[in-house]
Amino acid sequence: MIHPSAIVSPRARLGAGVSIGPFTIVHDNVEIGDHAQIDGFCELGYPTPLAHGMPLVIGAHARIRSHSVFYEGSRFGERLVTGHRVTVREGTQAGVNFQVGTLSDIQGDCTIGDYVRFHSNVHIGKMSRIGSFVWIFPYVVLTNDPHPPSDVLLGCEVDDYAAIATMSVLLPGVKVGEHALVAAHSLVGKEVAPHTVVGGNPARFLCDTIKIRLRDGTERPAYPWTGHFSRGYPAEVTAGWQLPPDA
Amino acid sequence: MIHPSAIVSPRARLGAGVSIGPFTIVHDNVEIGDHAQIDGFCELGYPTPLAHGMPLVIGAHARIRSHSVFYEGSRFGERLVTGHRVTVREGTQAGVNFQVGTLSDIQGDCTIGDYVRFHSNVHIGKMSRIGSFVWIFPYVVLTNDPHPPSDVLLGCEVDDYAAIATMSVLLPGVKVGEHALVAAHSLVGKEVAPHTVVGGNPARFLCDTIKIRLRDGTERPAYPWTGHFSRGYPAEVTAGWQLPPDA
Amino acid sequence: MIHPSAIVSPRARLGAGVSIGPFTIVHDNVEIGDHAQIDGFCELGYPTPLAHGMPLVIGAHARIRSHSVFYEGSRFGERLVTGHRVTVREGTQAGVNFQVGTLSDIQGDCTIGDYVRFHSNVHIGKMSRIGSFVWIFPYVVLTNDPHPPSDVLLGCEVDDYAAIATMSVLLPGVKVGEHALVAAHSLVGKEVAPHTVVGGNPARFLCDTIKIRLRDGTERPAYPWTGHFSRGYPAEVTAGWQLPPDA
Repeated sequence: MIHPSAIVSPRARLGAGVSIGPFTIVHDNVEIGDHAQIDGFCELGYPTPLAHGMPLVIGAHARIRSHSVFYEGSRFGERLVTGHRVTVREGTQAGVNFQVGTLSDIQGDCTIGDYVRFHSNVHIGKMSRIGSFVWIFPYVVLTNDPHPPSDVLLGCEVDDYAAIATMSVLLPGVKVGEHALVAAHSLVGKEVAPHTVVGGNPARFLCDTIKIRLRDGTERPAYPWTGHFSRGYPAEVTAGWQLPPDA
Repeated sequence: MIHPSAIVSPRARLGAGVSIGPFTIVHDNVEIGDHAQIDGFCELGYPTPLAHGMPLVIGAHARIRSHSVFYEGSRFGERLVTGHRVTVREGTQAGVNFQVGTLSDIQGDCTIGDYVRFHSNVHIGKMSRIGSFVWIFPYVVLTNDPHPPSDVLLGCEVDDYAAIATMSVLLPGVKVGEHALVAAHSLVGKEVAPHTVVGGNPARFLCDTIKIRLRDGTERPAYPWTGHFSRGYPAEVTAGWQLPPDA
Repeated sequence: MIHPSAIVSPRARLGAGVSIGPFTIVHDNVEIGDHAQIDGFCELGYPTPLAHGMPLVIGAHARIRSHSVFYEGSRFGERLVTGHRVTVREGTQAGVNFQVGTLSDIQGDCTIGDYVRFHSNVHIGKMSRIGSFVWIFPYVVLTNDPHPPSDVLLGCEVDDYAAIATMSVLLPGVKVGEHALVAAHSLVGKEVAPHTVVGGNPARFLCDTIKIRLRDGTERPAYPWTGHFSRGYPAEVTAGWQLPPDA
């Protein structure tokens, strides 16, 4: 299960049935859970003094795709799934079943809840706090420096079930409330209330999320999205979501 | 022509004179045309059940640059050229002489015509339909979900000779007409008529393309761009483009 | 110091104490200064006829992180530091202590001064001229073609100490003055005067930089940033910056 061309430190702790692809490097300070599958060309446990000796911990049943780089000093729950060329710096703490798309860049020193989904090319600045069941779409950036460059870092906060659409920027310290939606290509400088939609540059209140209807012919409400969308979540999680019978 | 460190499946079908660089992985379900040149650190034919067993087919005389990943289940005409770290998912169908820049990410299940040019870091959502001679510039995203997350996918359509400038987003289901221009940093939510320029957030009609003049001292019309630009296209293609004598 | 899996041309000129990581490729036409440290999965001196035989020159004490690609025909002063997956094309000239973040893409034929900082995922078009002590933040693009596609290239100019915040685009030929600030998610089409802030789409004058106060409780001016920020610069450089005593 470990390709002969891979370079795996004898100090790394690998669970049962772990698979390591060709040309992948696993450094000393790494723990990988059972049945994790690591592609080729990856580097896990990239050493940094900023990790203060803390290990990289990857939970069981992870799937890490090719050319990805994870620093030591971060921790992921079970069933992590990544795209290709993901970068994760030290001090990242993520819950179970985190899915993070190709080219995404997590700068570290941040917390991410359970069942979070990042699409491709998402950039998460240090000090970000992201809840559970959050969706972040391509080319979204969470910033942190209110007057760059400086030593002041104000992390953003994204609450449970919120969705941030393509190419939006959250300015430093912004909070996005539960079940809120940030429309595509927005610049968000103020708090976004729960269950509301904001958009534009600068982003302004557009409507309550309940006003948006599904474009599938049914005219059902599109939000909360938990009313119609359950793909990829386990049944015990979605049981309480009151999905319509056809979903 | 196959570097000894490359890992090439004996089931892969390689044409005459194919070159495979160091540390590159070629999986089983791959056909590569004659004289194609594949750099190092690539992975071709990345397996996925979503390809339903369809192969990755790369036409003759391709040039694929380093660290690129192509899934099985996609097909490219002759003379494909890529930058570095390109990702192409299953279900992508592209014509001849497609050029796709560094870091671009094609999500699959899309069609791309002949002689299309993507600059660096272009993101193409599933279900996109792109004509021939289209130009897409850096950090452009073609989206597809009108109320993310959902199971509704409305692909964008970009018609022949259209150009989409840097950091613009096409919202789901948008159509950009032939020879149209989307200005930089635009959010396009409505159909763009042929031979017109739109721009802004949200994008609005700015002018007909014919109004834009070349900033080369000649004051010739800049659009249709086929009137002054022919670099990289074969003579038999540009013969009908009525280029001025100096071009 | 050279990993046995690395492929290093015997014609490459390596200084004393140079370290080359696993699976890295160093081509013929490369000079690397003393004590430079190159990670794994990199490709240095990528051949191109556009370099006209000029070498890739990396100054002493460089640190190049994994999966990066540098073409031949570019030159970097001492203490270059890169993130992961950086791409640098031919004709790039950079001064000392250039730091360039993960996924950044420098298209070549450009000049970059001393002590410049690019954060992640910065895209620099050909013909750009960047001064010293400049800061460029994630997903910023410097463009160059005023009517794409065309053969006209008008490079952007960013003067000393200027800062360009996240996801802004500079249109072709734009000049940003000394110590100016471009706010996040802006589209800049006109010259930015020194010591001013612009922002929006299209970007307009917002205020003089002196009006912005540090959000650290002190209410000191945030600009010029040299009044409070010195992290990562040598003491002989910051000696003249009149930092307050506590900085």
